[in-house]
Amino acid sequence: MTRESAGEPGADDGDSVVYDLAAECTAEDVERNRPYLAEINGIVDYGVFVDLSESVSGLVHESVLEGTFAVGDELVVELESVRDNGDMAFEPVDIEEYTLQNVAHDYALTGTDRLKPNIGDQIHLEGKIVQVKQTAGPTIFHVADEYGVVPCAAFEEAGVRAYPAIEVGDVVRVTGTPERREGSIQIEVDGLSNLEGQDAEDARERLEDALEDRAEPHDVEPLIDWPAFEKLRPNLREVAKLLRRTVLEGRPIRVRHHADGDGMCAAVPVQIALERFIADVHEDENAPRHLIKRLPAKAPFYEMEDATRDLNFALEDREKHGQQLPLLLMLDNGSTAEDVPAYETLAHYDIPIAVVDHHHPDPDAVEDLLDAHVNPYLHDEDYRITTGMCCVELARMIYPDLGDELRHVPAVAGLSDRSKADAMDDYLELAAEEGYDEDRLQDLSEALDYAAFWLRYNSGDQLIQDLLQIDSADEDRHRELVEFFADRAREEVDEQLDAAMPHLEHEDLDNGAHLYRIDVENYAHRFTYPAPGKTTGEIHDRKIEETGDPVITVGYGPDFAVLRSDGVRLDIPTMVSELEEEVPGGGVSGGGHLVVGSIKFVKGKREDVIDALVEKMEDAEIDEALSSAAPIDD
Amino acid sequence: MTRESAGEPGADDGDSVVYDLAAECTAEDVERNRPYLAEINGIVDYGVFVDLSESVSGLVHESVLEGTFAVGDELVVELESVRDNGDMAFEPVDIEEYTLQNVAHDYALTGTDRLKPNIGDQIHLEGKIVQVKQTAGPTIFHVADEYGVVPCAAFEEAGVRAYPAIEVGDVVRVTGTPERREGSIQIEVDGLSNLEGQDAEDARERLEDALEDRAEPHDVEPLIDWPAFEKLRPNLREVAKLLRRTVLEGRPIRVRHHADGDGMCAAVPVQIALERFIADVHEDENAPRHLIKRLPAKAPFYEMEDATRDLNFALEDREKHGQQLPLLLMLDNGSTAEDVPAYETLAHYDIPIAVVDHHHPDPDAVEDLLDAHVNPYLHDEDYRITTGMCCVELARMIYPDLGDELRHVPAVAGLSDRSKADAMDDYLELAAEEGYDEDRLQDLSEALDYAAFWLRYNSGDQLIQDLLQIDSADEDRHRELVEFFADRAREEVDEQLDAAMPHLEHEDLDNGAHLYRIDVENYAHRFTYPAPGKTTGEIHDRKIEETGDPVITVGYGPDFAVLRSDGVRLDIPTMVSELEEEVPGGGVSGGGHLVVGSIKFVKGKREDVIDALVEKMEDAEIDEALSSAAPIDD
Amino acid sequence: MTRESAGEPGADDGDSVVYDLAAECTAEDVERNRPYLAEINGIVDYGVFVDLSESVSGLVHESVLEGTFAVGDELVVELESVRDNGDMAFEPVDIEEYTLQNVAHDYALTGTDRLKPNIGDQIHLEGKIVQVKQTAGPTIFHVADEYGVVPCAAFEEAGVRAYPAIEVGDVVRVTGTPERREGSIQIEVDGLSNLEGQDAEDARERLEDALEDRAEPHDVEPLIDWPAFEKLRPNLREVAKLLRRTVLEGRPIRVRHHADGDGMCAAVPVQIALERFIADVHEDENAPRHLIKRLPAKAPFYEMEDATRDLNFALEDREKHGQQLPLLLMLDNGSTAEDVPAYETLAHYDIPIAVVDHHHPDPDAVEDLLDAHVNPYLHDEDYRITTGMCCVELARMIYPDLGDELRHVPAVAGLSDRSKADAMDDYLELAAEEGYDEDRLQDLSEALDYAAFWLRYNSGDQLIQDLLQIDSADEDRHRELVEFFADRAREEVDEQLDAAMPHLEHEDLDNGAHLYRIDVENYAHRFTYPAPGKTTGEIHDRKIEETGDPVITVGYGPDFAVLRSDGVRLDIPTMVSELEEEVPGGGVSGGGHLVVGSIKFVKGKREDVIDALVEKMEDAEIDEALSSAAPIDD
Repeated sequence: MTRESAGEPGADDGDSVVYDLAAECTAEDVERNRPYLAEINGIVDYGVFVDLSESVSGLVHESVLEGTFAVGDELVVELESVRDNGDMAFEPVDIEEYTLQNVAHDYALTGTDRLKPNIGDQIHLEGKIVQVKQTAGPTIFHVADEYGVVPCAAFEEAGVRAYPAIEVGDVVRVTGTPERREGSIQIEVDGLSNLEGQDAEDARERLEDALEDRAEPHDVEPLIDWPAFEKLRPNLREVAKLLRRTVLEGRPIRVRHHADGDGMCAAVPVQIALERFIADVHEDENAPRHLIKRLPAKAPFYEMEDATRDLNFALEDREKHGQQLPLLLMLDNGSTAEDVPAYETLAHYDIPIAVVDHHHPDPDAVEDLLDAHVNPYLHDEDYRITTGMCCVELARMIYPDLGDELRHVPAVAGLSDRSKADAMDDYLELAAEEGYDEDRLQDLSEALDYAAFWLRYNSGDQLIQDLLQIDSADEDRHRELVEFFADRAREEVDEQLDAAMPHLEHEDLDNGAHLYRIDVENYAHRFTYPAPGKTTGEIHDRKIEETGDPVITVGYGPDFAVLRSDGVRLDIPTMVSELEEEVPGGGVSGGGHLVVGSIKFVKGKREDVIDALVEKMEDAEIDEALSSAAPIDD
Repeated sequence: MTRESAGEPGADDGDSVVYDLAAECTAEDVERNRPYLAEINGIVDYGVFVDLSESVSGLVHESVLEGTFAVGDELVVELESVRDNGDMAFEPVDIEEYTLQNVAHDYALTGTDRLKPNIGDQIHLEGKIVQVKQTAGPTIFHVADEYGVVPCAAFEEAGVRAYPAIEVGDVVRVTGTPERREGSIQIEVDGLSNLEGQDAEDARERLEDALEDRAEPHDVEPLIDWPAFEKLRPNLREVAKLLRRTVLEGRPIRVRHHADGDGMCAAVPVQIALERFIADVHEDENAPRHLIKRLPAKAPFYEMEDATRDLNFALEDREKHGQQLPLLLMLDNGSTAEDVPAYETLAHYDIPIAVVDHHHPDPDAVEDLLDAHVNPYLHDEDYRITTGMCCVELARMIYPDLGDELRHVPAVAGLSDRSKADAMDDYLELAAEEGYDEDRLQDLSEALDYAAFWLRYNSGDQLIQDLLQIDSADEDRHRELVEFFADRAREEVDEQLDAAMPHLEHEDLDNGAHLYRIDVENYAHRFTYPAPGKTTGEIHDRKIEETGDPVITVGYGPDFAVLRSDGVRLDIPTMVSELEEEVPGGGVSGGGHLVVGSIKFVKGKREDVIDALVEKMEDAEIDEALSSAAPIDD
Repeated sequence: MTRESAGEPGADDGDSVVYDLAAECTAEDVERNRPYLAEINGIVDYGVFVDLSESVSGLVHESVLEGTFAVGDELVVELESVRDNGDMAFEPVDIEEYTLQNVAHDYALTGTDRLKPNIGDQIHLEGKIVQVKQTAGPTIFHVADEYGVVPCAAFEEAGVRAYPAIEVGDVVRVTGTPERREGSIQIEVDGLSNLEGQDAEDARERLEDALEDRAEPHDVEPLIDWPAFEKLRPNLREVAKLLRRTVLEGRPIRVRHHADGDGMCAAVPVQIALERFIADVHEDENAPRHLIKRLPAKAPFYEMEDATRDLNFALEDREKHGQQLPLLLMLDNGSTAEDVPAYETLAHYDIPIAVVDHHHPDPDAVEDLLDAHVNPYLHDEDYRITTGMCCVELARMIYPDLGDELRHVPAVAGLSDRSKADAMDDYLELAAEEGYDEDRLQDLSEALDYAAFWLRYNSGDQLIQDLLQIDSADEDRHRELVEFFADRAREEVDEQLDAAMPHLEHEDLDNGAHLYRIDVENYAHRFTYPAPGKTTGEIHDRKIEETGDPVITVGYGPDFAVLRSDGVRLDIPTMVSELEEEVPGGGVSGGGHLVVGSIKFVKGKREDVIDALVEKMEDAEIDEALSSAAPIDD
């Protein structure tokens, strides 16, 4: 305490400005050598006590006071000293005329990127509420700012909702103390309030700008140089941005994908990229588990049953965990009119939907319902750009570090869907550089398909990662497992074909194509691998090789038929539309690609439908370039 | 400490009574100006120490003592003073001859209704053990008294069963301290003992009286004035009482209901009423979630598979959580002989069963197995009083506050089951007052049916509440969702009928009715909406409208047929019995309403069964008043 | 501190040895009257401070010192005194020449058998890591030593992996403090390190010896004297040892069993025996729940679907809970070539497999894949030694105390599989001694079969234990339940046969046997009890009784047939092989016992297959002694 300095108050002050602290100002807002307006709130022998704000007060010693004072009098003072215990002493400043300047409390904001160095200290944070979870203890507000998402625990009374006025979507100011908790950081809330007026607008704008910025996907060079793919890249980038934004906003993501090789090659890399990005963004080690869920779809389209179930889970998660409703990401699936009812159901809950697919789309039907849609057909390309190829690039845009683990995946995706893309050579070469020759890739493709069949509608995360050799350490196991599954798959295909081939019916069509028909209900094992679609495809492939001619193969069951053709200009979607008209009471529906697809009908009209179908095939033009590459959905 | 008062001991005592405190008496049992029997347990310079009970002792100062004393001597004393720290001082009372009067510890019982004001203070409570849950920490005894149920935590050693002699059903005295815990109140147990002898009997009687009292349902005026319904009211009241009693006794409730519109309209209001009542009764915020579970039934009756599963879960819950086995509440289901095997299975575990149904009952078969049974047929009424109508009143009896949210529900239930009740007009009017015109109600009914189909055997709580607009805030969503689901339902019915109608077979029966037959296996899509029962119903409805004549419609699959008739006096239950006899090896069984129902048989005898059936229909009397209103179970 | 003793230092020392404490030695390693090498680390007025090890240091008082010293000088000292606060004083020992002898820290190991008396004290433990579970708080290492398995909690930072170098399989030394936790004991880890070099080898050997020792099953006398069974005993003993070892190693066990009476009688006793043994071995009350799981198999063999699911769960448990992959125990199932693909899948993950079965085995196919295999056919015995009989003895070898509860079980197993073993009389007598007469046992067998059917693929632990009257208190319930289920089963069999019998086709074969055929698809109810296999069996039994002649019964569906025969020398496995050849495109496969089994084929070739089959039967030799006792898998 230096009495000596007492003689020089305000020596370097401006002559006319006195500062007036806002009520919420703290000691940290007080600067030396500045005159502040104070109010006397107590008089004692040795001086007077003054308040500068609700929490800033201190003594003016009688030795530096002149005149008499009453409680409530105003006084202009300057900071003289601060003791170790925080007690402040002030001295009067002699200013007769001045203008008051308000001083707001300096909420120096600490972003979620700087929580670690501030552990144990009170900080301020502004952000948007993205989840409000009521626990048996505190209420946990997940707050997203420009840098990440952090859980903030507010305690009212055990199990009682704290700050009931604060809801998901609000922009708030949090005052609290970052603490370590369960391997992450959590803020213990001292105060939480909605920003209002201009403050809120400013914050919203700032957050939105930062979000836009951070959502921006990485600029990664595609794994190979492929002009056709370039057309899709801007669209994919949009999906990457949408997904990154979804993560930054703390919204969960539900992935539904086609349960086959290409579908797995699409969904698993995106899943892993998102998990890693979520882990980076969220100060909550459970966030990746809670915020993304991958599930195979039960049908080649998004069924009402799946949608109802997904919606049901989402509503329960909102109820129980205060989560936002999820974004739905459809992969290798989802571009067609058959998906519309399910999409519309979700639309009523404002659930965003993004699709990456390479099946023949019905853009008119779905476009209005989607927040993003990538499909090669929308750019005059076709199924040969498989969903797996797209999604490896998508995963890299989301999380580039993942890239090296994925270099073999597009080749697997391509082989799985028999892509005849020019780029396949480059993809095969890329895979070869990683030690995957074509046989091994083909095995991997068969193995994935086989595993997908037996997993039914489980995601089988570990097993699929072991097969795909992503995020997996044990290369020996990967190799053995792939080989074993591939062998089993081939063996079971052989068994199936042993039963089926003797019952194959052959017909020479007028247009010169061979037509093969197989009754997969009566001449193939049911409920086992391979399913009717793959059984038909395998027969078809053998017949192409055997004959070298254009071939159409039809595998039919009681109320469905699967079609594959090579060298014939079929247009299955059109054929289906025509059949709907031509076979009244046939209940015909269906879809797929142009030259490969499936048709449904009522059991009792099977003969009529298939006869009409064959007639159409007979009329089809021969075009040896055409190939029914993509596998048939079972 | 006032020495002055020492000279006036016992001035106003009776001359002959001295009080003898029971061992467990505490300081609170000691009254001033009363002579107590004490025993000397220590002698010091400045006086003697005396015990009045195990925990009541104090000093008698030498200044007020006369004579000599030995440890163990008895002494009659009176309370002189109590220090701030609780130390007591006594002074001798000079009584030569006296009668002893025992003083029991005054367990001033604190009911579970007065726990909050006693937080932190030790209290006593008497009640019945309704659940004993061993946690990894303490043992939690749920105790029900006259006012509610409170969890009482007793700690022996972590994970070790405290008070192993105390079991569910025991009547006990708890000494402990109410504490806040997870938003509720829990008692930390200091002592827990079984009441015995007269005490136990008294307590049991008191609890039983209170239970009876509190179980009493509310007297609510029915939503509409309906004489037919009045006949059922006393029965419904019994069910309401049974359910309220079940809640008060802490027993879980499992609701199984018909998975259609009327079933939903019945089950959801009762579920919500019970959840709210449970929340009121139990000091445990998780109680509503743990104590009631609603599930659609897989079949139009209670299948052995469902019963085995329910039993399995119940036994596990008892094992893991110390819960009582549940009461089973069957809604819009459960009145028929087909339910008997499942009921008998549960009966072996003394699981109570209550049924509210409006399907044609087999009272002889089920009555002995049920604790309560409401069915309009038991009162010469019929299916027109739907289960939903009954259950809205039931829900209101259980929890009247729920009433206003339910005013549109009976109309939906009625439309769902095509009730031709006179009261429908009143119900429609009631709904109209809430803003539901008939179109909207019809939509709601279709939407419920559609959602129930896709939910399969999930309860879909949130979604159904959104559809029914109960406990749900967002009216816009409700409206859009209902409209969308209703439209989808109609569209899919149209698609189904497009396939089916061309294959409809028509025959003019001798009795003048039209007979329509449709092979729903071969001429309708399978495994999709609408299922065979509804498909048949929709065809039937169109034909009635088209012809205006009496119509019978039969939809048949490989081993089943569903029947609907209007204007013909069928008696399906009798027909089924006759067919069992007439078609040996037909494996015929079935049931339903008089003029609407379903029949099962073995595949190989389908033709025989249906031919015999048609013959019977031909003999049936025409009665244009009869209508197969209720929908057919699929 | 006694200055007097200062004159007699080291009076009884050897002349030449001075001890040198290892750095990690503690005060407890210091013995009185022993000279230690010390180093001076500080000099003060009143003496010098010396270090004997990292944690052992003390004062040498100036009064006993001669000469001058510098920090870093060595000094030979002896313990003079230890103060209450642990401070040590030393005095110099005058030894000129000496040999140094290293003193290692005396890690007096405390086995997991002596944790309780050491609660709160620091101990040392050596063992093998069997599980590493990362929790949100500490990392839990489960350590197995010679006596048991104990969880050791190490805390690095909440949710952060402590000691990341330590993995499952490592042999470690744990220093820590046993504490009670959740009803068990857990060690709070102070230090954890891998043993190295000779220490590790010694410990490994010691642990291995102890493991071998403890894994040794109990020597229990079989319940009955049965020479045929004696041949299997050594094999069963091996399985018992393998299972006990598996428990001791902390590896989980997954039991898959045939979903019928014999399968239940086999699996449940083994499950309970293992649960009890796990509870003894593991200091973790949840261990029995986490380490063993029993599930019925979906098919009469181990399907790829089940294996994929099991593998998936196992990989998830490893990922989430750090568990080892499980051992698979197949019971009443698993001896045939059909199991091979599933086994090979698991083999890639080094999952051990043990089988106890009594179905006709394909030893060549499975032997290489199994770690243990018990099957009577491997010892020239047959199905009459049922799996249940074997497993009751297996359970007793694992946990003998269980014995008395199991005395009725072999008889139930035998009746369930219609064993004609000589020993059945003894088993029946044994059961009779426990109060189970043959009727009651027969009821129990029917009841089990009925419950298994309705439980589908749930384990139904409680219900099955109530039926089997193991681990269950309420005998009345057991009796009622068994009777009720048995009655229901019989009633439903009667209903099924009412439908089926009129459609039974009869033929007199040339070899004199009766052939009965029943179309179970068209003339029996589907999806209900009894399933096709049992339906066929019941018809067969009635016909044997009725005719007294040799009988063959074939129940066929669209793509399968089940066969039973009595008095005819069939060889079904050979017949199946022949049919594979003779019916091209028939897709024939199948298996089972010699005279009872099932065949699969493609729907379209049913007639051909069954005709060819009947021809073979016609050629079969009559041998009235032969009986198709074991039930047919459905």
